[in-house]
Amino acid sequence: MAIVLNPSQAVTLDKLLEQIDTQGLDWKIKNSSNQPLPSIYGLGSLSNAGKTEISFLSNAKFFPHLLKTEAAAVILPQKAVDHLPDTVSFAMVVCENPYLMYARIAQWFDNFRLNSIPKQIHSSAIVAPDAIIEEGVSIGPLAVIESGVKIAAGSIIGASCVIGKNSVIGNNSILYAHVTLYHDVIIGQRCILHSGSVIGADGFGFAPDNTHEKGAWCKISQLGRVILGNDVEIGACTTVDRGALEDTVIGNGVKLDNQIMIGHNVRIGDHTAMAACVGIAGSTQIGARCTVAGAGMVSGHITIGDDVHVSGGSAVTSDILEPGRYTGVFPIAPHGVWQKNAAVLQQLAQLRRRIQQLEKK
Amino acid sequence: MAIVLNPSQAVTLDKLLEQIDTQGLDWKIKNSSNQPLPSIYGLGSLSNAGKTEISFLSNAKFFPHLLKTEAAAVILPQKAVDHLPDTVSFAMVVCENPYLMYARIAQWFDNFRLNSIPKQIHSSAIVAPDAIIEEGVSIGPLAVIESGVKIAAGSIIGASCVIGKNSVIGNNSILYAHVTLYHDVIIGQRCILHSGSVIGADGFGFAPDNTHEKGAWCKISQLGRVILGNDVEIGACTTVDRGALEDTVIGNGVKLDNQIMIGHNVRIGDHTAMAACVGIAGSTQIGARCTVAGAGMVSGHITIGDDVHVSGGSAVTSDILEPGRYTGVFPIAPHGVWQKNAAVLQQLAQLRRRIQQLEKK
Amino acid sequence: MAIVLNPSQAVTLDKLLEQIDTQGLDWKIKNSSNQPLPSIYGLGSLSNAGKTEISFLSNAKFFPHLLKTEAAAVILPQKAVDHLPDTVSFAMVVCENPYLMYARIAQWFDNFRLNSIPKQIHSSAIVAPDAIIEEGVSIGPLAVIESGVKIAAGSIIGASCVIGKNSVIGNNSILYAHVTLYHDVIIGQRCILHSGSVIGADGFGFAPDNTHEKGAWCKISQLGRVILGNDVEIGACTTVDRGALEDTVIGNGVKLDNQIMIGHNVRIGDHTAMAACVGIAGSTQIGARCTVAGAGMVSGHITIGDDVHVSGGSAVTSDILEPGRYTGVFPIAPHGVWQKNAAVLQQLAQLRRRIQQLEKK
Repeated sequence: MAIVLNPSQAVTLDKLLEQIDTQGLDWKIKNSSNQPLPSIYGLGSLSNAGKTEISFLSNAKFFPHLLKTEAAAVILPQKAVDHLPDTVSFAMVVCENPYLMYARIAQWFDNFRLNSIPKQIHSSAIVAPDAIIEEGVSIGPLAVIESGVKIAAGSIIGASCVIGKNSVIGNNSILYAHVTLYHDVIIGQRCILHSGSVIGADGFGFAPDNTHEKGAWCKISQLGRVILGNDVEIGACTTVDRGALEDTVIGNGVKLDNQIMIGHNVRIGDHTAMAACVGIAGSTQIGARCTVAGAGMVSGHITIGDDVHVSGGSAVTSDILEPGRYTGVFPIAPHGVWQKNAAVLQQLAQLRRRIQQLEKK
Repeated sequence: MAIVLNPSQAVTLDKLLEQIDTQGLDWKIKNSSNQPLPSIYGLGSLSNAGKTEISFLSNAKFFPHLLKTEAAAVILPQKAVDHLPDTVSFAMVVCENPYLMYARIAQWFDNFRLNSIPKQIHSSAIVAPDAIIEEGVSIGPLAVIESGVKIAAGSIIGASCVIGKNSVIGNNSILYAHVTLYHDVIIGQRCILHSGSVIGADGFGFAPDNTHEKGAWCKISQLGRVILGNDVEIGACTTVDRGALEDTVIGNGVKLDNQIMIGHNVRIGDHTAMAACVGIAGSTQIGARCTVAGAGMVSGHITIGDDVHVSGGSAVTSDILEPGRYTGVFPIAPHGVWQKNAAVLQQLAQLRRRIQQLEKK
Repeated sequence: MAIVLNPSQAVTLDKLLEQIDTQGLDWKIKNSSNQPLPSIYGLGSLSNAGKTEISFLSNAKFFPHLLKTEAAAVILPQKAVDHLPDTVSFAMVVCENPYLMYARIAQWFDNFRLNSIPKQIHSSAIVAPDAIIEEGVSIGPLAVIESGVKIAAGSIIGASCVIGKNSVIGNNSILYAHVTLYHDVIIGQRCILHSGSVIGADGFGFAPDNTHEKGAWCKISQLGRVILGNDVEIGACTTVDRGALEDTVIGNGVKLDNQIMIGHNVRIGDHTAMAACVGIAGSTQIGARCTVAGAGMVSGHITIGDDVHVSGGSAVTSDILEPGRYTGVFPIAPHGVWQKNAAVLQQLAQLRRRIQQLEKK
């Protein structure tokens, strides 16, 4: 059940559209029923929106829902309007990109929550005397801000966050509760870091060291940094390790879902997005506008070019320089079927030889 | 080494059985040696239990261990009793479901620890004045309870937990240290949430937005909630994202192990259990009494029916409506063997054509 | 950009080599230019090191970088020295194991940071009166140290850590911010635990319990402990579950990367290393000096011997007793190619039959 505003927050449809960011969007209101424009208290899907809520049609397959929706207003493209009967009673916002307009409206609703966070340093927070906290920063209860930290105006640091020595956070970034930044981490503007994320822990680097004991490892202290660009989102319990000598660098607009692991010295190009449970091993470079679907894995020390899309559960073990979609996942089947096929899989090279022999005859 | 009680806590075997929950279990004590019933100080496996401990036989293959156990008492089925020589010296609890009785006894032991947690609000916790904290609630050191939160009687909130605005926790739930609930999260009764788990972070939703820059993403604020039923257990560092517009819903009795990721708008039916490292992508529906073994992955927007069992490491990419076990995992082999077979795998479609041509001749 | 020292910390090359641990390493300085030995302010790769930094050549393929490096000094083997022209201007540290010497020098640099952490209990930490905190321990802001805990000399407990009842931490271990130890956890000497790691949460144990409702689960309280040996490193958001009845045991020198899951009752032998996102299911035993690459998965109740190396993304589902490398990963391909081959994969058993029939003819 989505947020519903209280009466003092609700606005009429035209006011709502004035208040959201419509840059790049063409739209017009079409009020089909000659009634006053509705006041909007909430945002819902076509099938769940209530009578004071706005909804949207972003996919033609939901057109049947449109005919039955209770929403007070719907964002929809002209093509959908053309197919509507006269009897529908909702107000319309005609826009060729309803999904993007929905995103912008959702932000407007969520801003009520974000704006209610007091822009002050909670008295229980532990802030180093030499930390630079600019105007309009919110620091939540029991947050720890270490020496040399700089937090730019408008940023929000949630309860119990720990911001390590000399880290820097740009304007209007949000760290939810229990985010950890190690020392010397740099976060850009308008970033969002979710709870449990850890930025700047040591990369996994060890030198074999048999001088004391066979098979032992000597830690390679990790002396690089992590740098996040602007507009980066980091999901809950996602970890981005600091570089060994150079830095780990996450480009502008990169979106990382939950439980992702980014190894040391990785570089990710602008606007690349990764779904949950992805792992990127150390020193790999990934281009711009790539996507990695859930549980995709990328080996270390390889290069993925721009506009590469890796399917869920697929393991990338060598360079991919051509744009396109790449997949490598064992198709699931009833267990008995899988067992039979998997057994043959182990004889595949031998089967090929047998076919070759048959062909020779 | 399992917990061992101190003398003031230990009880004789009959008293122990009076104190545990034996609902649904038939049992009788058989003291083979005409000696007084032993006092029980601990619980151990057949091979490790000491002379003052109780153990259990839940699998016939451990029968040889039974003959050598030092345990003071053993829970075992009648069939095992029938095969025992007269010489064994342990007391017996004859029960047809020894594993379940073991579980109930283990809970009894662990309750000494849980009951020792003081039912009070630690002076260092930061509790919003309007939060409703019922009787007998324990709030640990440095926990943060935000405005509008309600915590029902008997619940335990561990050290450094953060409970976001307007969240609700039912009776007798336990949140271990460092759990994060975002705002408007609903937790049922008798739930257990382990450290590092994050409930209610934003789902991963973005609209493509080329209005500013090619390939950029516009955040879709996540306005739904997370609702956990009763008797749910959430493992360490597991994340359950809030819904986009509707709610993410976890049914009664669902058990999620560590490091699991549940995407936004997922719905999981009652008593479904998932082992560690599983990921469920957004908007997927999973039925009741399913299991997903470790590192299983389920794509978004699909439906899994009741009583479906997904093997470890398998990726579910389309609906599974029939009950049963499903598998899709590449069988492991020595690296050289794998290399040969994997190479042929890339020619599989071609191999099939070659077989077809041979068959035509 | 790696750490750079300030002038009061920098030392000449000979002094640096006196101050690092060179046990087991033979080395000599060769100053090719009859100039005074350089003062060293930093450590960098051959291509990035500045004029006051030391670098190293650990792989012959970087020899071309050596010719162009700006580094003030380079660690390199005699073989590389023999191939160098006279014109190079850097000082040389001739050593047959440059990578290990680099590791030791990196530690020396990082120690400036570690030594700057005040060896005191921060006034905001909540320390139980009966906890034993030895000399020279650092406890960060808002850490919680519960009753019965013992922390040995020289250890560092980061901000907002929670150390559960009766846990023990050996000498000179480091817990970064937001580490959680449950009760009765034992950590050895010189261990490093990264932020978000959780040691000692409940293992995933449930007995089927249909006495109340079909398909329900009864929790098996987890009464064992976790024991970490000496020199263990645990990555960010890695979880190690406590044993059910016995203990979960991690051997000396084991290195676990981020986001790893170690199930209950697992035993891992000395010096085994695992990369990120690995999962080891309950009761599995892994030998010494093994490696598991990223996202490798190991089933429960199996045995892996010493010196076994599991490739990334591979699932081990039965015992591996022979040393060697093992792999099982579906090779990635362009999506269309994968689709064709994956379809045939589902007919593999049938294809084998067809080949057999052809052979009979």
